[in-house]
Amino acid sequence: VKAGGGFSVVPIPVAGEVIPGCRLGDLVLESAAKARVKIKDDDVIVVTQKIVSKAEGRVVEVDALDPQARRNLTVSEASRIVRSRAGLIITETKHGFVCANSGIDSSNVAPGFAGLLPIDPDASARRIRSRIKALAGLDIAVIISDTFGRAWRIGQTNIAIGIAGMRATRNYAGTKDVFGTSLHATNIAVADELAGAAELVMGKAEGVPLALIRGVKVVRGRGNARDLARPAQDDLFR
Amino acid sequence: VKAGGGFSVVPIPVAGEVIPGCRLGDLVLESAAKARVKIKDDDVIVVTQKIVSKAEGRVVEVDALDPQARRNLTVSEASRIVRSRAGLIITETKHGFVCANSGIDSSNVAPGFAGLLPIDPDASARRIRSRIKALAGLDIAVIISDTFGRAWRIGQTNIAIGIAGMRATRNYAGTKDVFGTSLHATNIAVADELAGAAELVMGKAEGVPLALIRGVKVVRGRGNARDLARPAQDDLFR
Repeated sequence: VKAGGGFSVVPIPVAGEVIPGCRLGDLVLESAAKARVKIKDDDVIVVTQKIVSKAEGRVVEVDALDPQARRNLTVSEASRIVRSRAGLIITETKHGFVCANSGIDSSNVAPGFAGLLPIDPDASARRIRSRIKALAGLDIAVIISDTFGRAWRIGQTNIAIGIAGMRATRNYAGTKDVFGTSLHATNIAVADELAGAAELVMGKAEGVPLALIRGVKVVRGRGNARDLARPAQDDLFR
Repeated sequence: VKAGGGFSVVPIPVAGEVIPGCRLGDLVLESAAKARVKIKDDDVIVVTQKIVSKAEGRVVEVDALDPQARRNLTVSEASRIVRSRAGLIITETKHGFVCANSGIDSSNVAPGFAGLLPIDPDASARRIRSRIKALAGLDIAVIISDTFGRAWRIGQTNIAIGIAGMRATRNYAGTKDVFGTSLHATNIAVADELAGAAELVMGKAEGVPLALIRGVKVVRGRGNARDLARPAQDDLFR
C-alpha cells in the first residue's frame, strides 16, 4: 500500500512483567530496539494504562470474590457515583473521567490484585516523553490509553487518559469546508482516535502494552488528556 | 518503521462532487486507481457518511438561518428526543444511534442544503462491498463512518454507522489474559476504532472521503453497525 499521506501503527511487545519503579521511558526504548522498531521524531508512542499503573505502584490487593471490597475500592477512587446498578458502578474519577468501576480492573495483573488508574496520567506521559528525550534526543508525543465503555453504544474503545507533546483535539474553528461553510462545531478528539487505533495492535490477551504510530498529523505542543474530560456542569448525561 | 503485525491507513481522495445515483463501489475503485492505491483482499475501506448520503439522494434543502426548520428536520429524522437545550438537540435516530441533530449536518454539502443519514447504512456498506466484489473480485470489508459527539468527553470521534464483511466488535469472552484471568467483560468496538483511525487521514476540510486500512486483524463475516447501538432499555443514559 502506498503510504502517501497515510500513517502506520506498529505493536511493540514488552518482555517480562513491569514492576514498581520501572522507568517506562527506558522500557519503551529497550522494547522498541528489541522489536527492531526505530523510533523517530514526531512519532506517537501509545502506552497502556496498566503498565503505567504497575510502574507507579498503583496495584492493590483485593479479593475478587468479595463484591463489597471491590465496591469500597471503586468508591475510594471516585469523586462521584454517576449510575449504579447490580454489578455495575459508573463513576466520575478524581481526574474527571466517567467510566465503569473508577477505571479499576483485574485484567493483566496477578490474581488477587487490581490496577488503579495513575494519579496524574498527563504527568506520567510527560515523564515518559522527557525520559526518551533525555536518553535518545527524540522529540515524540506520548499517549497513555485505557479501555472505557461508552453511553449509547455497545463495546469499549481505547481512549486517551494522559498525553504529552501534543494537543488532545484538532479544532476546526476558523476553517471552512470545500463549499466555504465554516466548520465551527468540529473539534476532533484526535488523542482518543489514536488510542483506539493503537488498541487494534495491542490486544488484551497478547500482552502488547506499547504501540508506535508514525506519519499522523497531530498538533504538537503542550496538551492534557484531562481537557478531554467534559466538566460535569457542561454535561447533559451525568 | 517495521510493519510486522502492524497496519497502515491511507487516504483516498475523490475528484469532483458525488451526485445522486453515483455507484460508490465504482467510485472507490476509480479513486483508488487514481491515487495509485492497489486494493487487496482483506483490506478495510472506510467511506464517510456524507458521500453515501449524497449518492443515495439523502440531501435536503433547509434554510440554515431558520432554527425552526432545522429543528423540524431533526425531529422528523428522530425516533426520540434524548436531551434538548438551547441550540442543541440530542436524539435517538430511527437506526437507534444517539447523536446531535439526528446526524443531520451542513458541512461539505452545498450552502442551503443539509445531509441526512442514509436510511440503512449497513445495507449501503453491503452494496459497496458487493459491487467491488463483482467488479474487481476483491473480498474486502467496508465501514461507513460519521462524526459523533460523546457523553462525558470533549470533542467528536468518527464511529461506524454501517459495516459489511466484518463483525462490529471483537469479543474476548472465553479468552484469558497473560495471568489466566478471564476477559469476559471485554468486547472491543473494533469498527468504531477503525472509523476513528480513518478520520485521522480524512480531515473535514480537505475533501478526502475514503480511506484504506491494511493489515488490521478484523473478524471477517457478516456484521452490522446497528448492533453497536445499545438498545434504549439497556442504556443508563437515555
